[in-house]
Amino acid sequence: MDAASVAWILTATALVLLMFPGLAMLYGGMLSGRSVINMMMMVMSSLAVTTVVYVIIGHGLVMGESKSGIIGDPLGFSFFSDLVADDGEGTTISAAFFILFAAISVALVSSGAAGRMKFDAWMGFAAIWVIVVYGPVAHWVFNPDGWMLADLGLHDYAGGTAVHMNAGAAGLALAIFLGRRNMAKKEKPHNLPIMLIGVGMLAMGWLGFNGGTAGAADFLAQYVVMTSILALAGGMLGFIIMQRIFDGAYTLMGLGTGAIAGLVAITPSADALNPVCSIIVGALGSAGAFGAIRLAHRFGIDDSADVFAVHGVAGMVGAMFVVFVGDPDAPAEHAGIFFGGDLDMLWREPVAIIVTVGYSFCATFAIAWLMNKVHPIRITAKDESIGIDAAVHEEVAYDRSGSDENEAGSDAADREISAGADYTVK
Amino acid sequence: MDAASVAWILTATALVLLMFPGLAMLYGGMLSGRSVINMMMMVMSSLAVTTVVYVIIGHGLVMGESKSGIIGDPLGFSFFSDLVADDGEGTTISAAFFILFAAISVALVSSGAAGRMKFDAWMGFAAIWVIVVYGPVAHWVFNPDGWMLADLGLHDYAGGTAVHMNAGAAGLALAIFLGRRNMAKKEKPHNLPIMLIGVGMLAMGWLGFNGGTAGAADFLAQYVVMTSILALAGGMLGFIIMQRIFDGAYTLMGLGTGAIAGLVAITPSADALNPVCSIIVGALGSAGAFGAIRLAHRFGIDDSADVFAVHGVAGMVGAMFVVFVGDPDAPAEHAGIFFGGDLDMLWREPVAIIVTVGYSFCATFAIAWLMNKVHPIRITAKDESIGIDAAVHEEVAYDRSGSDENEAGSDAADREISAGADYTVK
Amino acid sequence: MDAASVAWILTATALVLLMFPGLAMLYGGMLSGRSVINMMMMVMSSLAVTTVVYVIIGHGLVMGESKSGIIGDPLGFSFFSDLVADDGEGTTISAAFFILFAAISVALVSSGAAGRMKFDAWMGFAAIWVIVVYGPVAHWVFNPDGWMLADLGLHDYAGGTAVHMNAGAAGLALAIFLGRRNMAKKEKPHNLPIMLIGVGMLAMGWLGFNGGTAGAADFLAQYVVMTSILALAGGMLGFIIMQRIFDGAYTLMGLGTGAIAGLVAITPSADALNPVCSIIVGALGSAGAFGAIRLAHRFGIDDSADVFAVHGVAGMVGAMFVVFVGDPDAPAEHAGIFFGGDLDMLWREPVAIIVTVGYSFCATFAIAWLMNKVHPIRITAKDESIGIDAAVHEEVAYDRSGSDENEAGSDAADREISAGADYTVK
Repeated sequence: MDAASVAWILTATALVLLMFPGLAMLYGGMLSGRSVINMMMMVMSSLAVTTVVYVIIGHGLVMGESKSGIIGDPLGFSFFSDLVADDGEGTTISAAFFILFAAISVALVSSGAAGRMKFDAWMGFAAIWVIVVYGPVAHWVFNPDGWMLADLGLHDYAGGTAVHMNAGAAGLALAIFLGRRNMAKKEKPHNLPIMLIGVGMLAMGWLGFNGGTAGAADFLAQYVVMTSILALAGGMLGFIIMQRIFDGAYTLMGLGTGAIAGLVAITPSADALNPVCSIIVGALGSAGAFGAIRLAHRFGIDDSADVFAVHGVAGMVGAMFVVFVGDPDAPAEHAGIFFGGDLDMLWREPVAIIVTVGYSFCATFAIAWLMNKVHPIRITAKDESIGIDAAVHEEVAYDRSGSDENEAGSDAADREISAGADYTVK
Repeated sequence: MDAASVAWILTATALVLLMFPGLAMLYGGMLSGRSVINMMMMVMSSLAVTTVVYVIIGHGLVMGESKSGIIGDPLGFSFFSDLVADDGEGTTISAAFFILFAAISVALVSSGAAGRMKFDAWMGFAAIWVIVVYGPVAHWVFNPDGWMLADLGLHDYAGGTAVHMNAGAAGLALAIFLGRRNMAKKEKPHNLPIMLIGVGMLAMGWLGFNGGTAGAADFLAQYVVMTSILALAGGMLGFIIMQRIFDGAYTLMGLGTGAIAGLVAITPSADALNPVCSIIVGALGSAGAFGAIRLAHRFGIDDSADVFAVHGVAGMVGAMFVVFVGDPDAPAEHAGIFFGGDLDMLWREPVAIIVTVGYSFCATFAIAWLMNKVHPIRITAKDESIGIDAAVHEEVAYDRSGSDENEAGSDAADREISAGADYTVK
Repeated sequence: MDAASVAWILTATALVLLMFPGLAMLYGGMLSGRSVINMMMMVMSSLAVTTVVYVIIGHGLVMGESKSGIIGDPLGFSFFSDLVADDGEGTTISAAFFILFAAISVALVSSGAAGRMKFDAWMGFAAIWVIVVYGPVAHWVFNPDGWMLADLGLHDYAGGTAVHMNAGAAGLALAIFLGRRNMAKKEKPHNLPIMLIGVGMLAMGWLGFNGGTAGAADFLAQYVVMTSILALAGGMLGFIIMQRIFDGAYTLMGLGTGAIAGLVAITPSADALNPVCSIIVGALGSAGAFGAIRLAHRFGIDDSADVFAVHGVAGMVGAMFVVFVGDPDAPAEHAGIFFGGDLDMLWREPVAIIVTVGYSFCATFAIAWLMNKVHPIRITAKDESIGIDAAVHEEVAYDRSGSDENEAGSDAADREISAGADYTVK
């Protein structure tokens, strides 16, 4: 790997690292003020737990020598030498980049556990999930000998299946297994500016996620950064247009959700769509997420941060869209059916999606079921009525005990400011 | 374009993308809690709308074949092939970078519409403004055949005219056309930490904005990153020193405003000033913004996030400063008058400024006037009294309905914490 | 310096710039709502003041020609030519990178002054501290002719001594000199999501801090980015495991503190540890910080944001850990005692630590003492009882005066939302 590509992958790794606080803010901001600490800790601890597990065994499962395309050799890499090899091929930074892919997948799943899962149980779940679910699925998709890539000829640019649909299905399974939160009344997002900070960090990080997957500072990296920005724009517009039609009002929550759905939709297709279709796939991904959120709501499924709708459904939209309108002139040179491509993509891509989603859903459900057999993984009803932050973490997100003095202070400040210039005040 | 430069422009693009949530936080944090959703949506929707418009027609207007230096050929680029060309010249990532330049300009203008413009109208305005105002002005400044660059010999490193003065004048026009917000009492910034997060994101993004304009990972990029940091420091100091002298107290709002004003002031001059003058131009830009904010306040102009003062005035300060103290040893090799430069810069640079500001102000006013003729663009007085977030977006930035339980929970947490170690408490 | 390395150091500089708002959020979020403005201004003004001082005199003190290894020639560099030289060696961007190293050190020290130091005094202190404390210590460690590097053979990869232990000791000295805050009751962190945003920005910035220190886009940069991520994970786990054992509950404050402590611990050792030891050093650094926080609390020392525990102690842990388990196969090729290294590291490294911490503590205390002789540097008890934000800065972090209307608005929004689809509500 040339030095310029090393510079770019180093950068991309730093960008992807920002996706963790970004996701913590997006998910935390979307919840009520009673589960913020817990949600943010689930996201950040995913990074901590996954990193350790992935270094020890995960990278072998994903990128190790393939056993019939199903799974890699878990002991295939020594993290003392192979993961940090000075081989001139960028192995070290690529491994760091891969760690973060695994970790963000786990973090996304926490959407299904919001406000109701014991934190010990979450950390155990995260470790097991990386091995049992992420490992195989990522092997199928990312390993050159994985069956989806080698045998099925799946087109998935940067992990739409392994990361997004996988996490979406797993989040759904966890939400269904755990059941709904007990709520005295509807819970609304408690802090939308925080939510938008999260979206902003995620969007920036996504350029590293998609751009870094190119593996070099080349035309492909430029192309996918361009298409990612286009899909981001399409995603925002798509969602708020749906809101305008069906709800009558545009919301920031909708705009933020659309931004993420647009980015999810382009992830499998970023190297295969032309610019116009990149905008469209973002909008369609958003529209799909919009519908799926309503549907989940109707079925009473408490996938609290909508990972299945936003990552699962928008990911499927993006992956299927390529089948139809993949542009042979795009870097992937993958012709969709409308551009004269082979019709067999009509079953190849859905098979990959169904197997991924099916395996992820079932295996995740089984993990939760087994863990729950050993020891209940849901917090008690009493703790839930107190709120998981206060009851389990013994900490609340905001402390306003200084507020009374503060407001008195504010009055004092007012008096003095009004004597001076109030330049910040219109 | 060599691979190292591709790596840097990819990075710069990601950095500039962070300026959108940054600006949303800066502007949203500066307003009262009743207009936060609306302000953040105006900023983010600018990115969405501009991206689509710019890809279809905007890039041609700016960089297309010049018609007499006035405007580019709107159909000069095919976004299917020209904008994503694999020509080894970094065309694709440069186009992505340019999209974000256009979008951030539009986003800045929203300062003049805070809390009082219909959101549909804003999105329509944004689309029209990109075509009618940004397109021509950016053509004059960025296109090698644009009249300001080719005929006037304007020195403007990274878009002080096309982005900052342009947006400043447009924001002022919009603020004057719309009139002041109806306020029962003075509105104060509702969340200053959020404001500072915005400033931090913007400052980081600015290194990409100015550094990426170099177009390569070369000495020029290094130079402008250095001078940008120096002007950032000068800007912070300049503003709080003015506050100390005139108001008696240093504020975080002042420090944040000064940081941005310093960065604006260096934008046109980053390649032409020596280090000492870079610090000074930041401080002078800040001082100019400080004075302009007071002046706007005195004239009763409700440019709610001060885009004219901070971007318009500080931009002019930066552009004019080069005329006097441009250092012939800096990369631009542009000698200011004090360093033996030609006296004709004394009229060349002001002409560019006056034409930009004048055209932007008048055209923006005309757009708003025409749109308002078709359909009123200001929200109703009733909606304004409710607050635009709740009335128009049917969403409020913060939901404290969980707070009562939360505070009860906080007490519960207190009891338990006091039993354990209170390591976070001093 | 090749173009690829320029691209990477440009990026690293932008990443490190994000550490300033990051630190402002971490520190501000940890305090009660009465000192937020002041804390954030201390952090950001450190960047402003240090930049000016460092450019004029500081860079000479650190990197100028060495006087007997003790101090550099303060007039050794002309910032008109030497700091922005086009010499093909990346001098300009390296100097920008170095400015931020000095500034972040000063910013960290503000932990010891939280809520109780006059802001004028802080800015004066910052300027003096850069010259008297940071200048010499950084000279010893970073200058090839500095005595710690040249004579003592210190192993310190990226400034564990010059930045972290130095700032930790200085923060402790300042906290002890100023004495505790007057508090009617225990003050708790007022905003933990903001705190976590800070941690996230710092973590991303740290990849630039450690990665950029490599000075090139090479294997070393890849290696230290990998080990930094591993230590980050180890740090998070280490701290919350300690909490689980000693306190019974995991907290977000603990997870965030652990993340930073882990990154501090890897800073001196990032190029010398194998992957497993990188995870371990993060965990040990966290454990050390956990213990030191309790100890400071027991001794009644009000180091409000724990800079001594988190940066001082975790830094020492990291530096000492290398002595024992430095891996000869890591890029530093530094064999620890357990890997057959020389036993004399057992005194070399502690000498460096003791001298750094001792000099920094005493010199900082002396600066504060002298400044206080000239004019008291602590705010009045009355101002403190009002709160430093309102009393000194005449500004408060949050304004809820729009809240009453807002809550009314929220009800209005509720009614309308319930008529439409409540897709954001579960």
